[in-house]
Amino acid sequence: MKSANLKDLMAFRPDIKLFDATIRDGGLVNNFGFTDEFIRDLYKTNVAAGVDYMEFGYKASKDMFDENEFGKWKFCKDEDIRSIVGDNDTDLKISVMADVGRCDYKKDIIKKADSPIDMIRVATYINTMPEALDIIEDAASKGYETTCNIMAISNAQESDVDVALEMLGKSSVDGIYIVDSYGSLYPEQIRRISEKYLGMAEKYNKQIGIHAHNNQQLAFANTIEALSLGVNMLDATLDCMGRGAGNCAMELLIGFLKNPKYRIYPVLRFIETHMRKLKEDGAKWGYDIPYMLTGQLNQHPRDAISFSEAGRTDYTEFYKLLLDKD
Amino acid sequence: MKSANLKDLMAFRPDIKLFDATIRDGGLVNNFGFTDEFIRDLYKTNVAAGVDYMEFGYKASKDMFDENEFGKWKFCKDEDIRSIVGDNDTDLKISVMADVGRCDYKKDIIKKADSPIDMIRVATYINTMPEALDIIEDAASKGYETTCNIMAISNAQESDVDVALEMLGKSSVDGIYIVDSYGSLYPEQIRRISEKYLGMAEKYNKQIGIHAHNNQQLAFANTIEALSLGVNMLDATLDCMGRGAGNCAMELLIGFLKNPKYRIYPVLRFIETHMRKLKEDGAKWGYDIPYMLTGQLNQHPRDAISFSEAGRTDYTEFYKLLLDKD
Repeated sequence: MKSANLKDLMAFRPDIKLFDATIRDGGLVNNFGFTDEFIRDLYKTNVAAGVDYMEFGYKASKDMFDENEFGKWKFCKDEDIRSIVGDNDTDLKISVMADVGRCDYKKDIIKKADSPIDMIRVATYINTMPEALDIIEDAASKGYETTCNIMAISNAQESDVDVALEMLGKSSVDGIYIVDSYGSLYPEQIRRISEKYLGMAEKYNKQIGIHAHNNQQLAFANTIEALSLGVNMLDATLDCMGRGAGNCAMELLIGFLKNPKYRIYPVLRFIETHMRKLKEDGAKWGYDIPYMLTGQLNQHPRDAISFSEAGRTDYTEFYKLLLDKD
Repeated sequence: MKSANLKDLMAFRPDIKLFDATIRDGGLVNNFGFTDEFIRDLYKTNVAAGVDYMEFGYKASKDMFDENEFGKWKFCKDEDIRSIVGDNDTDLKISVMADVGRCDYKKDIIKKADSPIDMIRVATYINTMPEALDIIEDAASKGYETTCNIMAISNAQESDVDVALEMLGKSSVDGIYIVDSYGSLYPEQIRRISEKYLGMAEKYNKQIGIHAHNNQQLAFANTIEALSLGVNMLDATLDCMGRGAGNCAMELLIGFLKNPKYRIYPVLRFIETHMRKLKEDGAKWGYDIPYMLTGQLNQHPRDAISFSEAGRTDYTEFYKLLLDKD
């Protein structure tokens, strides 16, 4: 096992890539109801902060989801992205997420040469790997960088994860993400999982990323644990915004990294200008007892979200409900 | 370096001791203005949850601090503790904190045989070790268990810490605490510090504890990192209550530990009954941008507390202020 030494802590790793997932994961909190001003300022903030990739949202199927019920970043039409970034004449790359089973990728993902998008990130459960691979190959053949984000691995069989990693190793995918969907994993487990994924990455020349959730206040800790072992694609969101307990905070990560290309000041400015207002307007996310409990019990956060949205605080009853479902 | 393996994660360590510091560290938030009902219920909760030690507060000098300005747990008179615990006919042990320079220990700490208190925890900075040792020897000679909590080590010279540890090794103290006063330490640093403290502990047959703060959302992560290396006295508070960003949450720690003697249910009940009300009544603690910044910059949280209490949210101005003081 590799372990960070003093030199590692004082230096910086030029291979690290920061991904801002604020719109995509945060959009799950407010049905993507962001103003254009918010998105435009976030884009400028990411450019100024030196963030490497900004995820604009999902490429969701317009057949399956009603465009009147969600903000436009649920669909991420190329023209909507272009209205924010123009020709994106910056070092910031743009990604969108394609959800297996909820994306008309053959139609909605056009050739990269004609699109402002640089990367397609494919989100899949372990049992839908064949379609995930089809999206990856489709996107790669159209000229995009691609990643595969295998969700909910804390509930998957380890041998199934091994098979999925082998399939991805032999595919065109550029990066594979460790995803702690339920915020249930502890740093020791992240260590073991990172070693597994990094072993595959070395064999097939892929990169490994991490997307963590904060149910147990471990999103940042798990991210820097994975980082110390060699994981280099790091997802974060401003002010932790994301479904339920939220994500790894970009401001924590930039504070930790010593790479002078990253700057915290624009991030702080964005938070004071926009994130506080979002919360005042009713958007809710962040560590709280119900999310902690679904994390501890390795369950999907949906029950915790319903419980919180109903304004309930009878944690003991909620705990008994979760135990019943185990 | 020892590292947790799968067996360690499935099993439990019988040597672990949980310390509830809710009143003592939480009292810094509300000037110890807890109701007797709160304290009595917390005592019952700790007994029911299997917590090993409950810290009632400080033994502060009544010459230096006005009893009308603080709740009684700033002073922890023996009769006040007894009014809650009677003869404390339980497995829960009771501790109080003696702050170097702010405690009339020779007078206010009576013989253990006549007191409901089991342990005196001595809080000191590195430059006041001689008085800390005097309090330790005084308390040990009166029959108490003792610990020494060396504060603000992230700002101390490592060679000074080495000297302090040697002094403590040769003293009567039972345990020494790693204290991350500013919430500035990362898990890799906690690892190195734990190894240093544990080396001394082995040489002199002492126990090592950890008291973490949550400025960078690392209080729980740092606590379980230290635990995985052999640190066994673990401070936590209910709902993270503590100065500024707060502490390691007891409910996270109990969820992580596999020891069947610890029970989360009474903790959840206490949180839903009492902690929510404290917050509604105006007590403020928990992770927030100002505390994150003092943590990142390894500074005392006092400026962040003033900033928050003034209702300010201009984080960029606050950040510039902190940089100025570096």
